[in-house]
Amino acid sequence: MRAVVKTSSSPGLEMIDVPVPAVGPDEILLQVKATSICGTDLHIRNWDPWAQSHVTPPLVVGHEMCGVVVDKGPRADGPEVGQLVSVESHIVCNRCAFCRTGKGHLCENTRILGVGQDGVYAEYVAVPAMNAWPDPPDMPYSIASLQENFGNAVHTASVPLVSGRKVLVTGCGPVGVMAIAVARALGARLIIASDVSQFRLDMAKQMGADITVNPISDDVVGTIMDVTEGEGIDVLLEMSGAPSAIDQGFSTLKPGGEAALLGLTSGALDFNLDDHIIFKGASVHGIVGRRLWVDWYQMRGLLRSGAVDLTPVVTHRYALDDFERAFETMASGECGKVIMFPDPADADGQLE
Amino acid sequence: MRAVVKTSSSPGLEMIDVPVPAVGPDEILLQVKATSICGTDLHIRNWDPWAQSHVTPPLVVGHEMCGVVVDKGPRADGPEVGQLVSVESHIVCNRCAFCRTGKGHLCENTRILGVGQDGVYAEYVAVPAMNAWPDPPDMPYSIASLQENFGNAVHTASVPLVSGRKVLVTGCGPVGVMAIAVARALGARLIIASDVSQFRLDMAKQMGADITVNPISDDVVGTIMDVTEGEGIDVLLEMSGAPSAIDQGFSTLKPGGEAALLGLTSGALDFNLDDHIIFKGASVHGIVGRRLWVDWYQMRGLLRSGAVDLTPVVTHRYALDDFERAFETMASGECGKVIMFPDPADADGQLE
Amino acid sequence: MRAVVKTSSSPGLEMIDVPVPAVGPDEILLQVKATSICGTDLHIRNWDPWAQSHVTPPLVVGHEMCGVVVDKGPRADGPEVGQLVSVESHIVCNRCAFCRTGKGHLCENTRILGVGQDGVYAEYVAVPAMNAWPDPPDMPYSIASLQENFGNAVHTASVPLVSGRKVLVTGCGPVGVMAIAVARALGARLIIASDVSQFRLDMAKQMGADITVNPISDDVVGTIMDVTEGEGIDVLLEMSGAPSAIDQGFSTLKPGGEAALLGLTSGALDFNLDDHIIFKGASVHGIVGRRLWVDWYQMRGLLRSGAVDLTPVVTHRYALDDFERAFETMASGECGKVIMFPDPADADGQLE
Amino acid sequence: MRAVVKTSSSPGLEMIDVPVPAVGPDEILLQVKATSICGTDLHIRNWDPWAQSHVTPPLVVGHEMCGVVVDKGPRADGPEVGQLVSVESHIVCNRCAFCRTGKGHLCENTRILGVGQDGVYAEYVAVPAMNAWPDPPDMPYSIASLQENFGNAVHTASVPLVSGRKVLVTGCGPVGVMAIAVARALGARLIIASDVSQFRLDMAKQMGADITVNPISDDVVGTIMDVTEGEGIDVLLEMSGAPSAIDQGFSTLKPGGEAALLGLTSGALDFNLDDHIIFKGASVHGIVGRRLWVDWYQMRGLLRSGAVDLTPVVTHRYALDDFERAFETMASGECGKVIMFPDPADADGQLE
Repeated sequence: MRAVVKTSSSPGLEMIDVPVPAVGPDEILLQVKATSICGTDLHIRNWDPWAQSHVTPPLVVGHEMCGVVVDKGPRADGPEVGQLVSVESHIVCNRCAFCRTGKGHLCENTRILGVGQDGVYAEYVAVPAMNAWPDPPDMPYSIASLQENFGNAVHTASVPLVSGRKVLVTGCGPVGVMAIAVARALGARLIIASDVSQFRLDMAKQMGADITVNPISDDVVGTIMDVTEGEGIDVLLEMSGAPSAIDQGFSTLKPGGEAALLGLTSGALDFNLDDHIIFKGASVHGIVGRRLWVDWYQMRGLLRSGAVDLTPVVTHRYALDDFERAFETMASGECGKVIMFPDPADADGQLE
Repeated sequence: MRAVVKTSSSPGLEMIDVPVPAVGPDEILLQVKATSICGTDLHIRNWDPWAQSHVTPPLVVGHEMCGVVVDKGPRADGPEVGQLVSVESHIVCNRCAFCRTGKGHLCENTRILGVGQDGVYAEYVAVPAMNAWPDPPDMPYSIASLQENFGNAVHTASVPLVSGRKVLVTGCGPVGVMAIAVARALGARLIIASDVSQFRLDMAKQMGADITVNPISDDVVGTIMDVTEGEGIDVLLEMSGAPSAIDQGFSTLKPGGEAALLGLTSGALDFNLDDHIIFKGASVHGIVGRRLWVDWYQMRGLLRSGAVDLTPVVTHRYALDDFERAFETMASGECGKVIMFPDPADADGQLE
Repeated sequence: MRAVVKTSSSPGLEMIDVPVPAVGPDEILLQVKATSICGTDLHIRNWDPWAQSHVTPPLVVGHEMCGVVVDKGPRADGPEVGQLVSVESHIVCNRCAFCRTGKGHLCENTRILGVGQDGVYAEYVAVPAMNAWPDPPDMPYSIASLQENFGNAVHTASVPLVSGRKVLVTGCGPVGVMAIAVARALGARLIIASDVSQFRLDMAKQMGADITVNPISDDVVGTIMDVTEGEGIDVLLEMSGAPSAIDQGFSTLKPGGEAALLGLTSGALDFNLDDHIIFKGASVHGIVGRRLWVDWYQMRGLLRSGAVDLTPVVTHRYALDDFERAFETMASGECGKVIMFPDPADADGQLE
Repeated sequence: MRAVVKTSSSPGLEMIDVPVPAVGPDEILLQVKATSICGTDLHIRNWDPWAQSHVTPPLVVGHEMCGVVVDKGPRADGPEVGQLVSVESHIVCNRCAFCRTGKGHLCENTRILGVGQDGVYAEYVAVPAMNAWPDPPDMPYSIASLQENFGNAVHTASVPLVSGRKVLVTGCGPVGVMAIAVARALGARLIIASDVSQFRLDMAKQMGADITVNPISDDVVGTIMDVTEGEGIDVLLEMSGAPSAIDQGFSTLKPGGEAALLGLTSGALDFNLDDHIIFKGASVHGIVGRRLWVDWYQMRGLLRSGAVDLTPVVTHRYALDDFERAFETMASGECGKVIMFPDPADADGQLE
């Protein structure tokens, strides 16, 4: 089968032929219908220090996907052959203390598709039956592929209480704008979004932000204090990892406020615990992965009720064969989610 | 001034002239712009056993209202003269252990407007400055008057987690349908509403219910199990007090589900703690009043963001002079909220 | 091997020879070191209606135990041969929505040792490796056998907040007195215990109750209101299932109080939702099983720190061969936990 | 009356004669029985930058105390003349959004005794009746004076869940060791305490720490990982404000762990949000003041049940006239709490 592979310890990816994976006893074999690009995939392609320390070539890359079950191992229960499923990319052990206490997202034995083992930028992939999430048959493949990433947004926007409250989302990449949609669906009173890209701020508006601010041209702190009548925000959803955004976010956080941090900062930064957390009596929550499986059920509820519509997040569609252009689009930042289809016929004629 | 008064220990209400109330040092004097009828007011008019044991005539009746500040006592801070305010009808002591620990709705010294002291069916009323809630000047009087009652709905729908979940609302009187709107605003996945009145079920639909069931004509339990694919509901919001509705609600509640009970049952009933609560590992919450003042802030957020629109709940408008017709409408059950205006000019020409 | 078996659909139990169980691929084989008697086992022996509808003879009875691993199936990870373990008797599917969301105690596919499949009153038993809980090698067998039942107490006393609060425990059987010990370990301010048996009230005192009341001779409600200076209790832990105790508990529960219900009532009872839950703004939680595996970790913490000492709960020790006397003791109610040892040498010379 | 006063904008304090304060209408007049020294008082005496920006001489210093009611203003309800009370030093407005939503510790109009208005190092002080907390008549004055400071410890140790868990307390000053006692009372499994002073580590042991580590001589991180079998701690209570302790605390915090931060860092520091919070999915809570009045009720419960005994924290007693020596002792760090008595006869003959 064709697969996009990190073939050597250097920048770049290649499409090559590899064997269709064997199906383990607890696994199912999926025919990939759609797959989407995550920031992690860019890191691996660019072969940055993080990638060098986490990835061992050769490796089939990619972890966001949906597909149809085409085979099952002898002990695999769960979805039947023919079922459309999305995939949770974190394969957890179900045995450690974290897994046993509802904290599977912190499993100490986590393996990740497309990072620690072969991933999903391919025609087929084998995954544990437990990791497949049944989708309604009429869910568009592009949306089904997004669910894993959407789960990060649901996790982030569900940990603090957003209903009836004023929320700042710093960073309007795909996860940021999906978090905006979740905050809107959960009854946020006011959603302010900040980003340096006008493209992304437009997407933020479309997904439900009331007000957008661009740190390049706007006085972020002043604007926020103004629209909140001097009170500041109740909730910060930090999705950028940018020190200046973090500073703006905490500077405008109200006493008693809550912050959820998803964006990675790539190292230590100057941080004032007194002013940002202690004097304010604030609570700060680190967000990693998706709570297994609470966040998936929450996703299902938000999508099936129509409370969240992810359609506007999908801005580009490519054939998987065209992965180089897809990655270039993703790298440009002028996009939402970029979807790739192993079989171009699955793209409903909407390819770039 | 004119006021609707319970003049004697017998059924009925009278409009009579009474003095404009004196303003205490911590109080403000309000000119009543709109007032609405609650079930409690019906009880007092009908002089049922509850009313007989809680009310001592003569008493100006009524507790839901909005008005404009026209005078302030010397120690009253808070809203200025000219400000439009809604009123919290529960006057609490701010000193007991409940008040001191965020449970003011359980204050052991609570006095209630229109029950324990003169109320709001009048041209003027004096209330503690603390009990006034500033409204935006452009909020319609009818909506502003509803807020207190809306607070019961917010309280009920906020205690269980409704976001992404399947919710049953039993009882579609005004508080029930407002709770439906709140559950919708907070991202409920599916909202089922039950009531014996088709009028109320129509209102439930308008406020956001996905499915309505009428116990008179429908198989309530069967329908619910059907639309939930045999799983049952995650959350029960019980607003009817009817034993059959309570039974249907708990019978369809999922293991691990949550119930919030607001409707009063007027006495003991046959209840199976094993099946309804213990085996299910369910949680049940009694709802009384509004959490002071958390629920008022939550209301403000939901209304100002547009997440909840109360307009459809207001079905009838009368002059206060016409209170007999207003009460007849309320007693018929074929209505949402019934608003009365001391000055008919405040009704925007929409009087019945 | 010898095993205590329900051999026919009638009252009584028999010790007979049965084959040592085969070890499934995910299972471990345990040599039983100690086993304890639960109320459920009495029901099965007595062949009451519950037992008739849940048990199909022949069945090895019993579900509380500790033992040593003597064999492992090919896919069983977890404890090694030679390890002392306690056992969680609820075998859950790890796949349903409950199991996937931290609510394994509500698993819809639960099978229970000694009820739905062969149990632990035997020399050997095979259980899923997942269900074994490693114990320190120096933990007394009698204490290790209690852990499952202790887990019910931990679950009950952990759901409401007991620290710094006044707690009433109605019903001082083994789970009740263990719940008293947990409430004490978690910093309860005052613990009141009620039971009709003086033996049990003495045990309650020993496990940490401050005050005991006997409904036969004492004015329970009056005493509670007196010692709480008229305020009532903050928390009710209901372990009796007796309608009068339930009524006394809810009658003395403070507004805003919390109740956790474990005791089964065997049917519907007259219950006043208005007075007991709604007007009080109370919260009521049904307790079933142990939260998997949060409660087991909590147990470990409480036992290893010495915050809870279960020694006084163990009042009787018998050889398993002597199961008839052990059951008679249990049926008398004049006991705490009754332990049985398949090998009398494991009883440290303390047999009755 | 005699009072310890900051008389000018320079280091030092003076005992001078000042008028007995007038009692406002909502206030009570207290005869001070005991008063204790807090770090804040040292800052004011030393006239450091914080003090220079927060204090305007002349000012009676001090905020921790107990005393007896000797007079009441006309509107003051609450404790009667003759009652022993402790005092909450934060005078809040009871009107702002924080006060109205159970977050009085974040009141935006807070005034603090001995900082923003005359304090308690005097024979008499007038405080709002609301700020007096009735004590049992037999509570030792030294303990009664500690309660305010104890409240910081209760707040810190109550926000994360400590029961059954492994807790690290960094910083063993008075609040640190009182937090250790609270964690012990709430059923912590293991308590590790770190400080650079052996005196303080000894006090930590006495208050319930299982293990103490001194960063000067011990490998803190190594020791913690060792005693937690490589898992790390579940809960960090940070009471030192020292960057190295903060680093050690977060480095040993488990994934999913909780940190409560009370110690002030006096400025920004290098902090790795990725490693310390995000990747770990940790939660961090800033702690300021005492939750009004939840923490006072919690204190009462812990003290009256005997779950916490504060006696060992009181290490020195002085006459208020001897305040210079008392401050020297406090400044040395070789002490727990230092109590001062306006009337030496109240010291039970235990003066230094």
